[in-house]
Amino acid sequence: MTPVSIAEKSAKDMMAARENLSFDVETVRDYLFGGRTNWKTHKKIEDILKSDPAFDKSQRNFIGRVEAYERALAITNRLVELQRAHGWSKQERGQAAFILSEVLPITSHDVAFEPVFLGQASPAMMSEYWDLVSNKGIQGCYLQTELGHGSNVACLETTATYIPEAHEFDIHSPTLTSTKWWIGGLGKTVTHGIVQAQLILPGGENAGPHLFLVQLRSLEDHTTLPGISIGDIGPKACGGLAALDNGYARFNHVRIPRTNMFSKFAGVTEDGRYIRPRNPKHSFGGMMYIRASMVTAGGWTLARAITIAIRYTTVRRQGECDEHGLERQVIRYPSTYYRLLPILARAYVFIALGRQTLKEFTTITERSARGDFTKLSEAHAILCGLKVLVTNAVVRDLETARRALGGHGYSAFAGIGRLYADYLPAVTYEGDNFVLDGQVVRAAMKSYHAFMSTPSSPLGLHSSYIRLLKGNDPKPVLKEPTTTTIWQNSNSIVHLLEWRAALVLSEVVRHVDDLDANANQRLSKAVTDAFVAVKIGEMITGLDALPRREGDVIRALYHLYLLTTAEDALVDLFSTGLLQQSESRDRQLRLAIEQQCSRLLPDAVGLTDAFSFSDWALDSALGTFDGRVYEEIWRRAQLEPLNQLGNTPGYYESLRPMLQEGQKLTKRVNSRL
Amino acid sequence: MTPVSIAEKSAKDMMAARENLSFDVETVRDYLFGGRTNWKTHKKIEDILKSDPAFDKSQRNFIGRVEAYERALAITNRLVELQRAHGWSKQERGQAAFILSEVLPITSHDVAFEPVFLGQASPAMMSEYWDLVSNKGIQGCYLQTELGHGSNVACLETTATYIPEAHEFDIHSPTLTSTKWWIGGLGKTVTHGIVQAQLILPGGENAGPHLFLVQLRSLEDHTTLPGISIGDIGPKACGGLAALDNGYARFNHVRIPRTNMFSKFAGVTEDGRYIRPRNPKHSFGGMMYIRASMVTAGGWTLARAITIAIRYTTVRRQGECDEHGLERQVIRYPSTYYRLLPILARAYVFIALGRQTLKEFTTITERSARGDFTKLSEAHAILCGLKVLVTNAVVRDLETARRALGGHGYSAFAGIGRLYADYLPAVTYEGDNFVLDGQVVRAAMKSYHAFMSTPSSPLGLHSSYIRLLKGNDPKPVLKEPTTTTIWQNSNSIVHLLEWRAALVLSEVVRHVDDLDANANQRLSKAVTDAFVAVKIGEMITGLDALPRREGDVIRALYHLYLLTTAEDALVDLFSTGLLQQSESRDRQLRLAIEQQCSRLLPDAVGLTDAFSFSDWALDSALGTFDGRVYEEIWRRAQLEPLNQLGNTPGYYESLRPMLQEGQKLTKRVNSRL
Repeated sequence: MTPVSIAEKSAKDMMAARENLSFDVETVRDYLFGGRTNWKTHKKIEDILKSDPAFDKSQRNFIGRVEAYERALAITNRLVELQRAHGWSKQERGQAAFILSEVLPITSHDVAFEPVFLGQASPAMMSEYWDLVSNKGIQGCYLQTELGHGSNVACLETTATYIPEAHEFDIHSPTLTSTKWWIGGLGKTVTHGIVQAQLILPGGENAGPHLFLVQLRSLEDHTTLPGISIGDIGPKACGGLAALDNGYARFNHVRIPRTNMFSKFAGVTEDGRYIRPRNPKHSFGGMMYIRASMVTAGGWTLARAITIAIRYTTVRRQGECDEHGLERQVIRYPSTYYRLLPILARAYVFIALGRQTLKEFTTITERSARGDFTKLSEAHAILCGLKVLVTNAVVRDLETARRALGGHGYSAFAGIGRLYADYLPAVTYEGDNFVLDGQVVRAAMKSYHAFMSTPSSPLGLHSSYIRLLKGNDPKPVLKEPTTTTIWQNSNSIVHLLEWRAALVLSEVVRHVDDLDANANQRLSKAVTDAFVAVKIGEMITGLDALPRREGDVIRALYHLYLLTTAEDALVDLFSTGLLQQSESRDRQLRLAIEQQCSRLLPDAVGLTDAFSFSDWALDSALGTFDGRVYEEIWRRAQLEPLNQLGNTPGYYESLRPMLQEGQKLTKRVNSRL
Repeated sequence: MTPVSIAEKSAKDMMAARENLSFDVETVRDYLFGGRTNWKTHKKIEDILKSDPAFDKSQRNFIGRVEAYERALAITNRLVELQRAHGWSKQERGQAAFILSEVLPITSHDVAFEPVFLGQASPAMMSEYWDLVSNKGIQGCYLQTELGHGSNVACLETTATYIPEAHEFDIHSPTLTSTKWWIGGLGKTVTHGIVQAQLILPGGENAGPHLFLVQLRSLEDHTTLPGISIGDIGPKACGGLAALDNGYARFNHVRIPRTNMFSKFAGVTEDGRYIRPRNPKHSFGGMMYIRASMVTAGGWTLARAITIAIRYTTVRRQGECDEHGLERQVIRYPSTYYRLLPILARAYVFIALGRQTLKEFTTITERSARGDFTKLSEAHAILCGLKVLVTNAVVRDLETARRALGGHGYSAFAGIGRLYADYLPAVTYEGDNFVLDGQVVRAAMKSYHAFMSTPSSPLGLHSSYIRLLKGNDPKPVLKEPTTTTIWQNSNSIVHLLEWRAALVLSEVVRHVDDLDANANQRLSKAVTDAFVAVKIGEMITGLDALPRREGDVIRALYHLYLLTTAEDALVDLFSTGLLQQSESRDRQLRLAIEQQCSRLLPDAVGLTDAFSFSDWALDSALGTFDGRVYEEIWRRAQLEPLNQLGNTPGYYESLRPMLQEGQKLTKRVNSRL
């Protein structure tokens, strides 16, 4: 038996994993944060947060929804206090909320209420309300989804009927299914809401869904205003978003002034005439911004999970004995690193790509504001595709990471269960992924037909792969068995993935009247894979700006992303003939992936250190910086409420009687023998 | 707008879905339950349970762990009362527990403690303890896993040192990592435990892990006995298994009599000599039984989820308008039924295959008890493979089913979140799936080498596909573009999947010194897919015993299983050359799947009705029998504890001050203008 205890060994293993890194962690860290200044701001804010008792995380695994909600309010209050005390900008407070990584009821005010106000309120409404909104003198939410309608906004049932005699709208929930549902912050917290309702003009014409400001609760005592019925919709699956009071609301002929309509673009005159918006796409901005930010958010969510998984599998030893007679570190099993290192690669890609996406998106929004909508459709298609790709990958990868932790991965203390439960709805909200696939496909088909009829018309960024269908590039059929260089060359893989998208698209077009049921999902994935691949190619070029060692290791991660994307695409690559089936191309690819993983393995812990999660932020017994996982698991178990109780009432009422009855029965039997 | 409200329409849609079924539901129900008698027993028991207030489920989404534990004890007590009152056999009580579908702390007594007692206790221990055990005069658990060791039992650290002077064993936890961990029922409930510990003989020789009976708590007042430290290990990920008190235990030189060693096979004499067990495989039985039963359990778990998903997507309408001007039923979207109907097929396959597996396994155990171990290795390999295949599929399918429910699928009221959170650890316990893959591969390689050296030696059921490698069957390379009949013919697909296993195995053998990191997972899947396919072939033949219409619809489900298994295997099918890549074989396959789904779609609701879940048992607002989902969602939301509170303390302490400060700030700004 080893003289060093297993618990002690885990700390030594963690230290050893940080030696002999091929790169400097802080340089890579600065790359992830978008520069040293951003990192310093992040650290400054985190140092304030992590020592403040209001943000202590140690009880949060043990409390129910009511306590969690109360805790979230206290956290919110403290956050706003700190903002005022430190003079944080809105962006800095946003960063603080991001670092906190807590589910907060006020988030809907920040991400849904305020932006819609900014984007849709008339100058009059802005002057009346904006200061109150931005100072949080009122708290708002965005009431779109109904019990009966989520995706199909055109069929919402809530009505806003204009009453010309009173210069008022009558907001009404005509049916059970018109009840607003799922509205974040509504259940207990907000005072106001933006209600999306069918605008009914005098005479009965339905002008479609529009937005209306409705006060929901009294500013005096928070009671729900007359004619309105509000509540929380109940707990979420897997205990997710527990502190968030997603709510429902029903309106019983509630009157609001005409001026409460969000009328920057559309409107109703005093005598009830409808003012048509000049561009129907004006309201896309907010939704697109949220989708753009989901790329970065997905990346950082993966970063948390993979930090935990790589750290723990580095210190956990189990099974076969290595050359020192110690059980092998779990991360060294090929089946482990083959699963985990690609997730690390995806975290890096999504973080870097997300930053770039947000930047490009901001440019496009500024153009739209100036009336230039040319890039808007393209941006919409790209963001739909990215939203699907990122959220699908993150949900799947969170479970892969959790599963790699073995038994202790099922403990709440591992920290991944919470990440999963809170992230899960991302595949459904902001556009159900299956619906968004359809939009990506629609845009691709449109580009295809435009290109085929007029090859000289420019292809947008989201469709540039289509150029291959009429270009001079021969379809690259990989035939030569001795040529393995494709898998070693990032540009070759990018090119392959573009060809795959082009060929899958032309197959779908060819069979458009007889599509198989999976076609939308396959084509959407192919198109977005190609887009991301091209972006990675650009990002790889951008690495030249980094010092060589750091550029190399990130380049290796990006290359691994491309390799595993190709692995995921093998069916298409065979089916389209891009890979010849008789030459073990798939085996070559898997070996290339393994090789790439082996190259990255000694740097794995360092690469997760670059994410710079403090132990407080990560809140995981298995992901502590020092690797002392067993001591931490033990310590947390002592906090379990069941352990603060002696015998519970249930012991006396149920268990004890059952045991005693069983003992009695046995005595009777035994005494008869 | 439709005259019938959406809420009313959902009930009508559900009724319509039950018309024009191609088969009789009760006949298929009897097939699922293994006969009319089994069904009648099931119904009789369920009728007793579902009307008993002790088993009411309406509050369970709203309570925390302590309440959940207490509720579970009350349920257990009532269950045992009912057993005594109705004179249920052990099997009937087991069926009642299965119908209840509640997490109960006493389960470990039934599935881990009792069977090990039966299998490993000496006649003397049986005569002293068995009546107490089977009458529940004591409650037991099985302490194997430690903080530091799960999979690798050989390296457990707990010691049982024999003290010849006292005729006692000294049970001791020498290190932090030797602490027993994850033990179901230990945290608060049990009185006794079977402790697996390294047997240390006088002189210091370690004879390896053996089993020892240790009393943990007083039968008088349930206090923990001296020298023992016990607690609950804390909450699980995603709120899973909340009512189960998984516990930890540390032993500080606790003495037990020599006769407390489980010594049916191995033992220690009074003077400390070790008695070696005659067959090292004697202890496999319990573990194998559990794995065999996981096939059926997985099937019924899928059955619950798919009943919910098919019912809800039948009544939920969203998006495109159909020929009646109504939004389309979600289940009619190809991307929906393409995902859901294969899950329905897997539920049917796992249920039927599970019944068969348990039957065959019982035969093998009886043989082993008679000393005939010939089929044991084969059974072990098969059960490893099935455990991996079933648990991987169920976890993945539960999320697919949940995701198909759209927004409301994220509500706890949908019922799938709980299924997922409670089922999730199945991929890790009873053998981590990645470790089990290795065992399947080892068995396959062994069979391969035995067959290659002596082709006349018989292949076990788990390896029969290997016969193809030296047989006269030509490798079936599907070349003719006009031949689509393979996808229409179950036997052809079975044959194809056997060939795939054989070719993947020979590729792995060929590259055994240079395997890619994913090889074990691929080979294990291929081998088990082939085994299950052969079994399905047999099950299809067995359908001849059913009336024609019922046989047809189940046959269609089994065929769909085979089709989707082939779809999942496309990379291998291309890579091995079994499918020629230039002929759109993958597209043909997808069209065949779509066709099969279309054939089954009108029968979908009926096929889930055959599972016969009462609304009480299913406990899902989205899966009610009558389809009145919106009314049920609304009703349950009214029970949410947050809705029974007015303004919470947090409103006064945090929210109100923040709002008022914001309003003050605004007034100051406005008054200055």
